[in-house]
Amino acid sequence: MERHVCVDCGWVHYDNPKIVVGSVVTYEGKFLLCKRAINPRKGFWTLPAGYLEQNETTADGAMREAFEEANAKIRIRDLLALYSVTHISQVQIMYRAELDNPEFSAGPESLEVRLFEWSDIPWNDLAFPTVYWALHQYRQIKDKDYFAPFANASGEMLEKSLEVLRR
Amino acid sequence: MERHVCVDCGWVHYDNPKIVVGSVVTYEGKFLLCKRAINPRKGFWTLPAGYLEQNETTADGAMREAFEEANAKIRIRDLLALYSVTHISQVQIMYRAELDNPEFSAGPESLEVRLFEWSDIPWNDLAFPTVYWALHQYRQIKDKDYFAPFANASGEMLEKSLEVLRR
Ligand SMILES: [Zn+2]
Ligand SMILES: [Zn+2]
Repeated sequence: MERHVCVDCGWVHYDNPKIVVGSVVTYEGKFLLCKRAINPRKGFWTLPAGYLEQNETTADGAMREAFEEANAKIRIRDLLALYSVTHISQVQIMYRAELDNPEFSAGPESLEVRLFEWSDIPWNDLAFPTVYWALHQYRQIKDKDYFAPFANASGEMLEKSLEVLRR
Repeated sequence: MERHVCVDCGWVHYDNPKIVVGSVVTYEGKFLLCKRAINPRKGFWTLPAGYLEQNETTADGAMREAFEEANAKIRIRDLLALYSVTHISQVQIMYRAELDNPEFSAGPESLEVRLFEWSDIPWNDLAFPTVYWALHQYRQIKDKDYFAPFANASGEMLEKSLEVLRR
């Protein structure tokens, strides 16, 4: 393993996998998406999500991200999916969440925030494959009170999701 | 946020939350526990678990830890629980897993590895509160094919689990 010695504290800082927390947020069956104002994938649509911070629960982190990116106060329902994105050493923890009121606006990291009907989702302009996975997996359990959370997509869903990155 | 500038690569290394992966492993209704050979909590009993490594899926990490700590080849069934241990900035991802054969032995980080009947579990000598949570939560779903994973314990389970640390 590479060494990473810190000039500030003297400790070796290992590169550890990072935790992304986010959510599929719905309001009256519509999906809240954010158009990214920053790279990577600036201009593409994503779910409210971002890095978990120190001393934060995963659910609190997902709520904070929705507030930062979309000025949306969401209610976390349950765990939708746990993804391992190994080539970038990310674990993504995605919740099912709801908006109680259609109140939201673009935060500093978003160009635009919108509620989309399923058929209007900009599938050709999604930011990341995991956004595609989470939206489709959500659809499979949307009427269920509880379910086992999903893992990485495979087969046809995985294949189709990778087309996202060709744009 | 504190800065942590690296003398090796020049980047700022932030302190990020760390991911622990582990599992409640059973064989014929008995529970696989490891007696810790290292600090913290040397001499106390724990579940096979440890830090996720770079470029590893969470399930692969849990299997690796069971092999390193108990020379056990486990089969991951599903996600049992997702804990946020905020005061040490850990996210713990705990699976339900099984041993197909009662083959195991102490790895370098374990003094001893044993299968325990529920009633024989050394409750007074558990290493961490989350070990107590995972074992009790497992009991609640042991006959279910699927279920929504658990989060941090609360109420009486949390209270009782904290007694673990008084020893
Ligand atoms: Zn470095
Ligand atoms: Zn440092």
